[in-house]
Amino acid sequence: MRNFVFYKPTKIIFGRDTIPQIGKETVVFGKKVLFVYGKGSIKKTGIYDQVMKSFQDAGITAIEHGGVKSNPVLSHVREGIKIAKENRVEAVAAVGGGSVIDSAKAIAAGAVVEHDVWKFFRTKKSIKKVLPLTCVLTLAASGSEMNGGMVVTNEETLQKFGIGNHLLQPLVSILDPSTTFTVGPDYTAYGAVDALSHILEFYFTTREPYTPVQDRLMEGLVINIMESCNRVMARPDDYNARADFMWCATLALNGLTAAGLGRVGFPMHLIEHSLSAIYDVPHGAGLSVVMPGWMTHQAHENPARFAQLAERVFYVKKADESKMAAYGIAELKAWFEKISCPTDLGALQIPEQDIPRIAENTQGLAKVWRLEEYTKDKVEAILRLCT
Amino acid sequence: MRNFVFYKPTKIIFGRDTIPQIGKETVVFGKKVLFVYGKGSIKKTGIYDQVMKSFQDAGITAIEHGGVKSNPVLSHVREGIKIAKENRVEAVAAVGGGSVIDSAKAIAAGAVVEHDVWKFFRTKKSIKKVLPLTCVLTLAASGSEMNGGMVVTNEETLQKFGIGNHLLQPLVSILDPSTTFTVGPDYTAYGAVDALSHILEFYFTTREPYTPVQDRLMEGLVINIMESCNRVMARPDDYNARADFMWCATLALNGLTAAGLGRVGFPMHLIEHSLSAIYDVPHGAGLSVVMPGWMTHQAHENPARFAQLAERVFYVKKADESKMAAYGIAELKAWFEKISCPTDLGALQIPEQDIPRIAENTQGLAKVWRLEEYTKDKVEAILRLCT
Repeated sequence: MRNFVFYKPTKIIFGRDTIPQIGKETVVFGKKVLFVYGKGSIKKTGIYDQVMKSFQDAGITAIEHGGVKSNPVLSHVREGIKIAKENRVEAVAAVGGGSVIDSAKAIAAGAVVEHDVWKFFRTKKSIKKVLPLTCVLTLAASGSEMNGGMVVTNEETLQKFGIGNHLLQPLVSILDPSTTFTVGPDYTAYGAVDALSHILEFYFTTREPYTPVQDRLMEGLVINIMESCNRVMARPDDYNARADFMWCATLALNGLTAAGLGRVGFPMHLIEHSLSAIYDVPHGAGLSVVMPGWMTHQAHENPARFAQLAERVFYVKKADESKMAAYGIAELKAWFEKISCPTDLGALQIPEQDIPRIAENTQGLAKVWRLEEYTKDKVEAILRLCT
Repeated sequence: MRNFVFYKPTKIIFGRDTIPQIGKETVVFGKKVLFVYGKGSIKKTGIYDQVMKSFQDAGITAIEHGGVKSNPVLSHVREGIKIAKENRVEAVAAVGGGSVIDSAKAIAAGAVVEHDVWKFFRTKKSIKKVLPLTCVLTLAASGSEMNGGMVVTNEETLQKFGIGNHLLQPLVSILDPSTTFTVGPDYTAYGAVDALSHILEFYFTTREPYTPVQDRLMEGLVINIMESCNRVMARPDDYNARADFMWCATLALNGLTAAGLGRVGFPMHLIEHSLSAIYDVPHGAGLSVVMPGWMTHQAHENPARFAQLAERVFYVKKADESKMAAYGIAELKAWFEKISCPTDLGALQIPEQDIPRIAENTQGLAKVWRLEEYTKDKVEAILRLCT
């Protein structure tokens, strides 16, 4: 096992009827708060009203910054930073899914510096402090509610970049699974794919030869994400299914699976980010296209690892490792299809002749993420397996 | 899933050569520190010197309070509180296993109040604040390094009581698996039993009917504790085996397994605490005696749960649930015997005629822990299954 630091200051408040706690949990950090949210679905579901009432009860003045879109964009983050500075807010509260939380993180980091926030993403500047951040999560997917990662798209340069810093970890995150009853089958499925990808990125990129503790943890989460997603699809208002699904998505990327694995990477995200940056496809839909192709490519290098997953998660019988690996990947792909996720570029209306352009787009982030082995040629080869 | 709060402020620094960080991690909380340790094994292994040098380098004045014994006693805690108050220490640093850390927690809580510390254990007073606590862990077992629990024995009244409070969570814990190379097979085995018991207490006492996420997590840890313990027994200086074992023991009782299970209890610990309180047996040895008996007693009430463990951990084939349960318990007991742990009262030199006295002793803690269903009669019946 490799040395690691596990530091998780986020207080998770999980369960039914927990949203009214957001006010008293946030006011600890300040009375003037930037309230970040999305395209307004929280107004339809009544969550907006609950949050505003809780803020009022706690004596918080909420400065609103709604309108975050999926694949959140830099221009909107910059606006948020401007508003935060003008109003001298003391904290940021995010109410929404991963896009909203990631935007709020970028604002929390950008509001305390003079330079442009994009410099953080280009790793030209490092984050030294941030405004305190609290969250109400309304979508099980990204894990952003309990980690220090954030992803933002620079829509001018078509760059979807992600970075991480422990200071970006929310201080409080409220997770009420019943807020996700209204999430449709498409975004439920994308969330499942996203959470699975977070586990599998680490599972397949660790270079440690023997990681039995993390393996069982990851395999258990993979099984549970698929099983709970199936239950949600069958009955969208099944509280326990939504709860299992939500908690799995959080655990999938809160540092626990990675602890001890040494350096791990996000090569599938690397490629997906270019799909989202250029075509603005939903993140989970991009991932369900990239994952089977990347896994097929990678299985040749390390079939034993893929065979283990196939055996423990998909109950593939012992056989030649390469065969087991291929069966496992086929099972995963079949499951993606079962939950109506795209599994090839064509399903996203992305023509094959765009492959070189996509591969070219990956190179900026490959540098930021120190994934230089993902050359244009290698990415092209992987993308051809996604057709 | 039941509502829960998961709040884990402990910064875990895990790996080789991490002990020299204790000074700079502790000085953040103060320059005058009570340094709590055990019977002196850290002097033989050189850990004491490393810690003292690190304190010195950080400008810390360390007031020493060594001599903590296994099954730590109240009188020694009270002495520590006196020293802490006299010297106005600003923080407490514990270097040792669970007994040392638990003593340090009790001192950290007792040093900031005027009343006697035992009142916390009798739940006559509640903990409102504590001195900051940092740790270096040298024994994989209790999980105290990442939780808010502490257990102390009042040797005058023969009461071994345990309580929990989130304020008791260490702020930093340093875990270097190589510090455990010198832990002999007896205490390695006791540690394994202790860690297993922490998982199984929750696994079998949750009243939630369906907890698939927590189940996979707990089953994975049970498998890994047994496997890594076997590897340690085969080669005591196998770093990865020690590391897997140590991290499992931490994860076994850091709140993660319990999150969402609702109210869980420690009935096996309840009975074991009386064995330790009266006969001062090692905690793990007491548990390996109590566990098979308690499980046999309990399996009648909920055979499905025991059958699931048998199937997923011991690969017992599908059959009648009661039979599967019995096979699973037999497998666990056989493993305890394989690692040379006692599995009946006789092996601890405790005569059967003492059973009523032991059962009587459990009643005080049963009240504190709200386990009133564990009447004298019920405990006697369980203990008769431990002969």
